[in-house]
Amino acid sequence: MRVLNIETKGYLGKKIKVAGWVNSRRDHGKIVFLDLRDKSGVLQVVAHSKIAEGIKEEDVLEVEGEVKERPKEMINPKLETGNVELKAEKIKILVKSQKLPFDIKSLKLSLPKLLDFRPLTLRNEKQRAIFRVQREIIDSFRKTMKNLGFFEFEAPTIVASATEGGAEVFHVDYFDKDAYLAQSPQLYKQILVSVFERVFTVCKAFRAEPSITTRHLTEYISLDCEMGFIESWEDLMETCEIVVKNIFSDVERNCKKELEMWGAKIPEIKGKIPRLKLREAQEIILKRTGKDKRENPDLDPEDEREICNYAKEKFNCELVFITHFPTSKRPFYTFEDPENSEYTLSFDLLFRGLEIVTGGQRINDYKYLVKKMKRFKLDPKNFKYYLQAFKYGMPPEGGFAIGAERITKQILGLENIREASLFPRDLQRVDIRLKKKK
Amino acid sequence: MRVLNIETKGYLGKKIKVAGWVNSRRDHGKIVFLDLRDKSGVLQVVAHSKIAEGIKEEDVLEVEGEVKERPKEMINPKLETGNVELKAEKIKILVKSQKLPFDIKSLKLSLPKLLDFRPLTLRNEKQRAIFRVQREIIDSFRKTMKNLGFFEFEAPTIVASATEGGAEVFHVDYFDKDAYLAQSPQLYKQILVSVFERVFTVCKAFRAEPSITTRHLTEYISLDCEMGFIESWEDLMETCEIVVKNIFSDVERNCKKELEMWGAKIPEIKGKIPRLKLREAQEIILKRTGKDKRENPDLDPEDEREICNYAKEKFNCELVFITHFPTSKRPFYTFEDPENSEYTLSFDLLFRGLEIVTGGQRINDYKYLVKKMKRFKLDPKNFKYYLQAFKYGMPPEGGFAIGAERITKQILGLENIREASLFPRDLQRVDIRLKKKK
Repeated sequence: MRVLNIETKGYLGKKIKVAGWVNSRRDHGKIVFLDLRDKSGVLQVVAHSKIAEGIKEEDVLEVEGEVKERPKEMINPKLETGNVELKAEKIKILVKSQKLPFDIKSLKLSLPKLLDFRPLTLRNEKQRAIFRVQREIIDSFRKTMKNLGFFEFEAPTIVASATEGGAEVFHVDYFDKDAYLAQSPQLYKQILVSVFERVFTVCKAFRAEPSITTRHLTEYISLDCEMGFIESWEDLMETCEIVVKNIFSDVERNCKKELEMWGAKIPEIKGKIPRLKLREAQEIILKRTGKDKRENPDLDPEDEREICNYAKEKFNCELVFITHFPTSKRPFYTFEDPENSEYTLSFDLLFRGLEIVTGGQRINDYKYLVKKMKRFKLDPKNFKYYLQAFKYGMPPEGGFAIGAERITKQILGLENIREASLFPRDLQRVDIRLKKKK
Repeated sequence: MRVLNIETKGYLGKKIKVAGWVNSRRDHGKIVFLDLRDKSGVLQVVAHSKIAEGIKEEDVLEVEGEVKERPKEMINPKLETGNVELKAEKIKILVKSQKLPFDIKSLKLSLPKLLDFRPLTLRNEKQRAIFRVQREIIDSFRKTMKNLGFFEFEAPTIVASATEGGAEVFHVDYFDKDAYLAQSPQLYKQILVSVFERVFTVCKAFRAEPSITTRHLTEYISLDCEMGFIESWEDLMETCEIVVKNIFSDVERNCKKELEMWGAKIPEIKGKIPRLKLREAQEIILKRTGKDKRENPDLDPEDEREICNYAKEKFNCELVFITHFPTSKRPFYTFEDPENSEYTLSFDLLFRGLEIVTGGQRINDYKYLVKKMKRFKLDPKNFKYYLQAFKYGMPPEGGFAIGAERITKQILGLENIREASLFPRDLQRVDIRLKKKK
């Protein structure tokens, strides 16, 4: 039976079998050192040149031999298996690799090249680390949600109409009919509040974002939840805080090696995450930069960075909630502030200069929801299906969504969101760079 | 703080607050009995008619009162909270429901109506039970995969070309370019074997199935996995057996109530699931039915039922593996049987007359894969991205995929696969029945 590289430490003096890819080969006369990589890490294999003949990088091997302690001067403290090595007795080449187009151990590629060669560049240790961190983020979200009594569901991808505005939606040829890709699971998670009260989903969301930015993907992973029977919209921000803090502590605990590789530090959050109303934030920005953005309906990327700088200086916190966005600029279902109906009970969470969460309370009263649709020039007839959930009793509710790639990017300090997606899709790329339609 | 209905048993003699929907109302003079439904179950609320005035079915309430033991003759053994009731002191109507179009406690609707009113019919206890069972199935799959060292990833939805054949693929208008919806995560999970060795995903797969059947959805949940460094293709069937057996035992253990509601029984599997080659199965069908299908490349639905009957009679097993499908009818990447290259090392798993799993070993040799593509009239240039994973060393590997809705349907004995999807999509329906393009 095969032993994983990481487990070899437990087999000192024993004969075992390992398997993996040749990470590197170093020849010392009759002795050859092969670094063998498997999913668990790298192991040094020592072989006689005779049985290592012709073996090159990325060849896939099965090696049988004895696990030995390394001589003291040969111990490699950087490697988890650094105090052992495998003395090879038999090497079987499972499959040969062709010559590599570049060194995958120390990638020095532009982003387009990194993505053109994605199947290969993902073999790089630092690249894999990104997705181990992302896995931890998603798993942590799922765990917290379940602990809080949320029911998981798989949200639909194909939808019958553009839910949150028409422009940035992808059209699907659905037999002889029209359909679209879901911009969010919003309407479905709301419907399911009337069934399961608290629901969450790890799903794909799609935006036909027509510009190239470092923060947008056309297909992204949304960590979405919705909760009924809230007593106040503050319940939502509190739940969001719990989720985000757990993500940070889980990543810190379980991804030490990965964080170290990227020189990344998990933010410390002492007490509550500070909260600022949009208009307060804009006043602060005016004071700090002289730029008057007090009429804007949202923060732009520059504002997000500035207000995060402020929060860091003022509250020593790398996160800040921005609340009370204007009613006219939030989707029709957003709950209005009873104290001032020009603003909504909505929030964004910014982290190191980037919005990573958006959420808010929703309108749960059927008649008011219909009225609001009309005010937004939407035809309630087109929402008959969704409206059933409200017509027959929907409790006070709200929710939020976390962008999985965005929080990954911000934790690791990546420059571009594409680096935080295994197979990023954008205006020009779906794996390969697409050609225009003929 | 609100207490869930199911928890009230622990609050005997205490004053608490509950919340939920009015499942039913029964008037007995000055006393009103309200069955209050929340996500955990139903609780009987006893109220004076004065404070229950105007309360109707599906109104959303918050009720404060004291938890009391029911008089012996009033105990309802069918209800988990059947030995307690809440004596209401204060009732707050959070939101009113409109008059219901039908009784949601005992649905007597045709399938189209059931789906037209999905947001409402999901409130029915038996309907919710389907998705609690499905949740358990998906969670069980995830748990087993993780325990076996598989790495979870989120598979892409938008893809650049039709992977497994052209006809049944949905086209997406991708800016000024063409894209498609993934028919499966096949190529991505293979790519990731060269990165993480063992991977799995809970993802959506899309088939533009142009006919209406009881077993097809256009969007379905695929439980997909792929494993590298297999020693034989039997490793795949063994892993599949572990996964499926765990699903059965987890559902049996954690969904007792739900199984009871549907009168459903988990199959017993003693020892190994029987295995038959396709050609053997066809010989058996010929003997049993007189129908000669020995030239067919696959089993049709009738065959699947017949061979399951046979397996039940002969092996007392409700599941059976069918193996060795013809090379010409399986996708290009399927590994051929070294003993007879006309057949492949592939398998389907049938359960109570329906295929619920498909899998097999894949070609991992680069040159042979390219050759096979050409033989299948596919242009390797179009697969350059995918082929990187093979060009630079791919270990022997294979995998399988379970249809989540199908296994749900078969466990519960549902008549139509649409019942096993929260929001089923088919030729005519995406929530609502779609209209033809103008």
